Amino acid sequence: MTLQEGGAGVRHVSFNAGNRGGWQLSEMRAVTGPGLAPFARLEAFAAEAAPGAVWSLSGVSSHKRYTTRGEAAMMDARPAPLGRAGARAAALIPIRKSPAWWSLAQDDRRAIFQESSGHISIGMDYVPRVARFLIHCRDGGGPFDFLTWFEYDPADTPAFDAMLARLRATEEWLYVDREVDLRLVRAEA
Amino acid sequence: MTLQEGGAGVRHVSFNAGNRGGWQLSEMRAVTGPGLAPFARLEAFAAEAAPGAVWSLSGVSSHKRYTTRGEAAMMDARPAPLGRAGARAAALIPIRKSPAWWSLAQDDRRAIFQESSGHISIGMDYVPRVARFLIHCRDGGGPFDFLTWFEYDPADTPAFDAMLARLRATEEWLYVDREVDLRLVRAEA
Repeated sequence: MTLQEGGAGVRHVSFNAGNRGGWQLSEMRAVTGPGLAPFARLEAFAAEAAPGAVWSLSGVSSHKRYTTRGEAAMMDARPAPLGRAGARAAALIPIRKSPAWWSLAQDDRRAIFQESSGHISIGMDYVPRVARFLIHCRDGGGPFDFLTWFEYDPADTPAFDAMLARLRATEEWLYVDREVDLRLVRAEA
Repeated sequence: MTLQEGGAGVRHVSFNAGNRGGWQLSEMRAVTGPGLAPFARLEAFAAEAAPGAVWSLSGVSSHKRYTTRGEAAMMDARPAPLGRAGARAAALIPIRKSPAWWSLAQDDRRAIFQESSGHISIGMDYVPRVARFLIHCRDGGGPFDFLTWFEYDPADTPAFDAMLARLRATEEWLYVDREVDLRLVRAEA
């Protein structure tokens, strides 16, 4: 996996749901708002949307939007790369935030994101167990604003669930008006 | 003009250079890096790229990325809408910023943008004379990161030039690695 999360470059990626790909659906739940159509396998980080897919969600890996220099240094010091051998469980969590969120000024969004909700701090509590990769898709006009991809050892599923429960209890999540929670396992070849 | 700059919604727009559109090219200059091909007329804020255009630049009007609540209130209090009768001069200034800029953390980018470079303060010195509308295109994969559209009374051209000169002398502009300056006048029907 040579993708760099949140780096200086912009890279387009697609998640294609259908009958092919390296990940098998194990569970899917509409947390807030409408869900997504079920499927057998997911192609993650594809170069483009697949014709004939049950659905495709696309976006870009791009620069970080809220992270301070100190936080970035802390994250760089504790790398949690994708593609680790033991990380046979994954989650794809597409979310959309409300117009009320997007009409907030940058300082207000940042204050809710970290100073009130501790989004970065919560995530760091589960690093390096949980690897995370953020895709931006708000400006692409699709149904979600972000797609977050996670990879972890199946034994760390309770920790992963606890992380999500903490995030969903924050002030930031009051602004999430659509969320789907997809769990996957590495498909046996 | 019902476009809302920097609002909660996302709207795709295109600027199509060719032989049609409401604006006539008066002057074009490559400030940094390669220029753009010359053309006769520009279609501004089109819904999509025009087939057969000399070139098209597209992007989205999206939420503000650096503006604080206080700055947003100050800007809202001094509106400078597009489409004013006297504003028969316009400029389209596509810019790209360097990888060094995009690898900076949000707080460092913000500090250079306003605390060091006074980008918002400089712009506000020319409001309401100069109307400004920002299009984001970095995540769309095109050749520029931003397209900024300006409208003003031709009599205010010296003030507009002074504003650009001040911006181009800032620390922020050290990170601009491509910039083209296009001046236009309203085409007579």
